[in-house]
Amino acid sequence: MQKYRLFAPGPTPVSEAASLAMAQPIIHHRTKEFEKVLEEVRAGLKWLFQTKNEVLIFASSGTGAMEGTIINTLSKGDKALVIDGGKFGERWWKICKAYGIETEIIKVEWGKAVDPQEVEKKLKSGDFRALLVQASESSTGVYHPIEALAKIVERHPKTLLVVDAISALGAIDLPMDRWKIDVLISGSQKAMALPPGLAFAAVSEKGWGFIEKSDLPKFYFDFKKEKKALETNQSAYTPAINLIIGLQEVLKTMKAEGIPAIFERHARLARATREGMKGAGLKLFAESPSNALTAVCAPEGIDGQKVYKTLQEKYNMTIAGGQDGAKGKIFRVAHLGYFDDLDVVTSVAAVEWALADLGYKGELGRGVAAAMRELRK
Amino acid sequence: MQKYRLFAPGPTPVSEAASLAMAQPIIHHRTKEFEKVLEEVRAGLKWLFQTKNEVLIFASSGTGAMEGTIINTLSKGDKALVIDGGKFGERWWKICKAYGIETEIIKVEWGKAVDPQEVEKKLKSGDFRALLVQASESSTGVYHPIEALAKIVERHPKTLLVVDAISALGAIDLPMDRWKIDVLISGSQKAMALPPGLAFAAVSEKGWGFIEKSDLPKFYFDFKKEKKALETNQSAYTPAINLIIGLQEVLKTMKAEGIPAIFERHARLARATREGMKGAGLKLFAESPSNALTAVCAPEGIDGQKVYKTLQEKYNMTIAGGQDGAKGKIFRVAHLGYFDDLDVVTSVAAVEWALADLGYKGELGRGVAAAMRELRK
Repeated sequence: MQKYRLFAPGPTPVSEAASLAMAQPIIHHRTKEFEKVLEEVRAGLKWLFQTKNEVLIFASSGTGAMEGTIINTLSKGDKALVIDGGKFGERWWKICKAYGIETEIIKVEWGKAVDPQEVEKKLKSGDFRALLVQASESSTGVYHPIEALAKIVERHPKTLLVVDAISALGAIDLPMDRWKIDVLISGSQKAMALPPGLAFAAVSEKGWGFIEKSDLPKFYFDFKKEKKALETNQSAYTPAINLIIGLQEVLKTMKAEGIPAIFERHARLARATREGMKGAGLKLFAESPSNALTAVCAPEGIDGQKVYKTLQEKYNMTIAGGQDGAKGKIFRVAHLGYFDDLDVVTSVAAVEWALADLGYKGELGRGVAAAMRELRK
Repeated sequence: MQKYRLFAPGPTPVSEAASLAMAQPIIHHRTKEFEKVLEEVRAGLKWLFQTKNEVLIFASSGTGAMEGTIINTLSKGDKALVIDGGKFGERWWKICKAYGIETEIIKVEWGKAVDPQEVEKKLKSGDFRALLVQASESSTGVYHPIEALAKIVERHPKTLLVVDAISALGAIDLPMDRWKIDVLISGSQKAMALPPGLAFAAVSEKGWGFIEKSDLPKFYFDFKKEKKALETNQSAYTPAINLIIGLQEVLKTMKAEGIPAIFERHARLARATREGMKGAGLKLFAESPSNALTAVCAPEGIDGQKVYKTLQEKYNMTIAGGQDGAKGKIFRVAHLGYFDDLDVVTSVAAVEWALADLGYKGELGRGVAAAMRELRK
């Protein structure tokens, strides 16, 4: 017997409480009962996004909310500045391209975070309607310096700061209103510990001003229509009812834990995973590591994809391999959402075993011991 | 104690087997295990859609697949012919409008089906790239004559027949390949007896030819990208994993029942509901009634919305009221998906009680008796 363990940066394990809530008989969305659910969920999402703004909910993957942001905030002829330091940074300019939005791209070497000064220089050099960035770039495990970027964009009233926090929200502190983030995006299958199928977007007052003027075509992802419906606890189209009921449950758990504790836990799990990997003699890939996941360099002579495959096939554990240029060079372990200290012990232990299986000459247990010491601090 | 009963035309009751399957620990979508799920689901969907074409799966509500169809098959300057006999017919031209697609609208009186001869005349009069229609128009309970329309469109090689079968697929026989339907759309929360959150679109070879030439902007609902991924049992973006696992379970049940039996059951439940309502002295709203739901005229002097509200508040049963111009005039009872004979008995009985509560002078039980006789045939 070998239990299935999920340590990928999304989907992440679904909490049992949420699973049970979602398995209850479905209710109709145009009922007072569901309106109450939505009312509670709206308040909970504002709390989690640390904003007074409405958090829009879509039945889609996170990419839907990324596309929705572009087509609702921008207009024909607009130009956007994109920070591309990985697969998800790439996605920003690909969406822009699909809608004829001109982009300038700040290409960041995979594993590195963007330099805010470079962003500042670029922003001054052109007329950009939006700066598009990831908080946690899942393909590289990098955290981009959102607070510093927010301070820069604040000086550009004609530019929106759009933050894809799909894998960051609820794991890393991103106080939307305090930092003045204009659009903050997330998805259900990351720190919220739900199955995939919900995407979220919160928009600042400044952002809603842009939306009023936007002339790009849209229908399903129409932010204005969705906001109007949500304000009376409705949705423009049939919502993903059972996921929203699961979300209601998850938000209760998160509130009980509290925002500082949630971020401290993710920071602790991240530190322990990093110490564990270093203890096992491995190098970390991200210079500015995200607390949502840890990208680890495969040791000399060992294919990172084989680490991933061995964990999958021999230990029934799903982590993530590398993508594109990082394929074979790294593997990625998440500690995101419904995760606790002993989960880190299991992931580091399994990585140590898998590496040993692949001929790595490390002393078994040194990684786990390092993680344990860190968790004990 | 009063159990909750859901008789709305979507969402419909979720089968217990599907709920349990979806409540199991989530698996990652980039695993062999999930690839096997997708492989089985792809084959099952082709069977259910009665087509050799790939059935695309999106994490979205049905409207997403409607929008997806417009932006993938049409191009700038194209003109579409829309059959608008209700809320969902309206949605077709609203989507077209959002993307600058010119439309001609065949306005059909609510409660009536389109006259195929009128469609034939219109199609000859202009250069239409698509005929957009609902199989079952949920706002009126009407079934439009899809087979007759298909025969007409077959003579127009430059026109696609696009059928929104969101509430019809799996309830009403719509053999895609045999009838030559070019795009057939559905959603998870209707006859498939799943929660909302999945939308489907199958496209004919002719339709794929249109897609090759389409120049409208798209990203999340990009049919070509999704098809390419699906052919290797992948998805372009994170799929709604647990809904797809529920779908795998539902397709097993549907296959065990068999296609002819599924449609016969829906036809029988629909006939019995209609006989039940008539037996209670009520008039039916739809001249060409759909087997997915029954729209009933509120009796003289009784507000249809009050029938809906009484059922909700006093009998814990959700049906649907009327929308727009039909508000107050009708109520709608579904018999769609996970429904059997005795469900019809309960819906007719509850409607009889609710009408009596509202002062209707019918003899209690006459409707139920009529439904029972029909079900016994």
